[in-house]
Amino acid sequence: MRVEGFLFEQLLMITPVMILELAGVAVFALSGALVAARLGQTLVTVCFFALVTGVGGGSLRDILLGTQAEWLSDPWVSAVILASALLVWFTPERWWRGQLLEWADAAGLSAFAALGTAKALEFGVAPIPAVVLGVASGCVGGIIRDVLAGQPSILMRPELYVTAAALTSILALAALATDLPRLPALLIASAAGFALRGAALVWSIELPSYGNKKAGRDGPPS
Amino acid sequence: MRVEGFLFEQLLMITPVMILELAGVAVFALSGALVAARLGQTLVTVCFFALVTGVGGGSLRDILLGTQAEWLSDPWVSAVILASALLVWFTPERWWRGQLLEWADAAGLSAFAALGTAKALEFGVAPIPAVVLGVASGCVGGIIRDVLAGQPSILMRPELYVTAAALTSILALAALATDLPRLPALLIASAAGFALRGAALVWSIELPSYGNKKAGRDGPPS
Amino acid sequence: MRVEGFLFEQLLMITPVMILELAGVAVFALSGALVAARLGQTLVTVCFFALVTGVGGGSLRDILLGTQAEWLSDPWVSAVILASALLVWFTPERWWRGQLLEWADAAGLSAFAALGTAKALEFGVAPIPAVVLGVASGCVGGIIRDVLAGQPSILMRPELYVTAAALTSILALAALATDLPRLPALLIASAAGFALRGAALVWSIELPSYGNKKAGRDGPPS
Repeated sequence: MRVEGFLFEQLLMITPVMILELAGVAVFALSGALVAARLGQTLVTVCFFALVTGVGGGSLRDILLGTQAEWLSDPWVSAVILASALLVWFTPERWWRGQLLEWADAAGLSAFAALGTAKALEFGVAPIPAVVLGVASGCVGGIIRDVLAGQPSILMRPELYVTAAALTSILALAALATDLPRLPALLIASAAGFALRGAALVWSIELPSYGNKKAGRDGPPS
Repeated sequence: MRVEGFLFEQLLMITPVMILELAGVAVFALSGALVAARLGQTLVTVCFFALVTGVGGGSLRDILLGTQAEWLSDPWVSAVILASALLVWFTPERWWRGQLLEWADAAGLSAFAALGTAKALEFGVAPIPAVVLGVASGCVGGIIRDVLAGQPSILMRPELYVTAAALTSILALAALATDLPRLPALLIASAAGFALRGAALVWSIELPSYGNKKAGRDGPPS
Repeated sequence: MRVEGFLFEQLLMITPVMILELAGVAVFALSGALVAARLGQTLVTVCFFALVTGVGGGSLRDILLGTQAEWLSDPWVSAVILASALLVWFTPERWWRGQLLEWADAAGLSAFAALGTAKALEFGVAPIPAVVLGVASGCVGGIIRDVLAGQPSILMRPELYVTAAALTSILALAALATDLPRLPALLIASAAGFALRGAALVWSIELPSYGNKKAGRDGPPS
């Protein structure tokens, strides 16, 4: 698929995208490793959670596309995940409190959503499913992590999270449909999703929920 | 794979199958959206549950077959899922009580089981695994929905459900082995599974469970 | 991929590997069927658990590799799974107490880890991901079984389990990199992992967990 003559140009263009992807993997791997560490698990389980959270979303995207999971042919992804797990293991848990990780997760979420939509379009997926695949790339690693840990996943909380991924994916779809080059298109879409997720973190923006969307209805929906 | 000259004939034959498939997607999407709505979730989560339940079974079938998930190249499936989620969101929950949905779910279950077996055979799968894939196509969307929602899945209840999908898949396998054209073969198999599931709904037919299958054993199995 | 002239040699070489694989499937299927039987489930659910546990790890390996799941084109695997489920169903549960099954599970775990790594390498996967795929082949069937049954999975217990699979996979990677023929390479790697898992069973070897790895910290980690 690659013309040899364009190799240098491709390298220039593709490197920032790869860095974006590895950073997203690292951030998700850290969040997975931390969940396992907080549950008082062993190093092996910490590595497992780092792996599942780091590559879960991208793997689902790839297997739905009917192609081999990207991290299998990329020696960096596994190394980054292992390093993330060891970092969590050998540092005290209190280093990782506070919102630092939530912000990093927001960056990973929006980077993966943009990259996922772009890859889906490359594989000839229709527009709406391409947006869905982008959202899944961003959110699914965290969902698997929470289900395995027996925690209520972000999916079940009213906080704005999936919506930020959806905004990124829709913008990525729109930007890639224009003449914009790939990298700025993805960066603009990611930045918008990151800003929305950041706003949700700062001001605790929540979506209305089904039971409470009707006026005059009180009490928790059963 | 398609000869241009047979296009019209193919269209005549394929359209009812596609309608069968879209109806199944809609029914499962509705059931997923309702579970999320009853849990008091947001619109985004309602859409997510509609998606996972609507395409979960078919996606598992396709990824096991090593092919791209069908809904990625079909613009209708995503639209049907979105519409189902919005329908649940903008209508009061009491509209959806009663057994209407259970009957619709029975229709979706048997339609997907027949279609799943047929697709597996097209991909050269051996007979027993083809039946297994048909059953998975029918049941897995609902199982993922229940696991994500933290509910005991239909799988763990003694009520006849998977069995109805198995009946449909076995009959589809047998009917496709004869000279019967594809559509009537699938419709006959679906109708039989639907009738069995319907009978289970009307008369609460249950399978014997392991602890209770031996005579003289009382009390709930632990 | 196969030269006709080498058919006889291939048969001689491949048969023990296939037997290794079918034995692993049978053992995992038995463990899955038993979990469902102990939960007092129906025969259909017992079959479902046998299937998911028996082919879960190998299926994940295959779909990540972007290829069709092996058991779909192999008529033996489904038959072995069905037989395992029926065996559990028609025998009293007390036959299956004790550590026999744990030892069989250890054999399945190490066989699958070695076979998974070998298959990943055949598909051109990088070394570290190939080890990860081997570990996943060995462990994931049991994890899905436990998540579906609502039980804490082996993954969350400090007992040495995933580590044994990792030892097997790393040794398989090393042995296949030498000039050793495929079968003895896989058998040596499997034997080492089996021995480690066996030692963990006999002497209850546990890995240190995150909360307790620091000296002077008492009480359960929260």
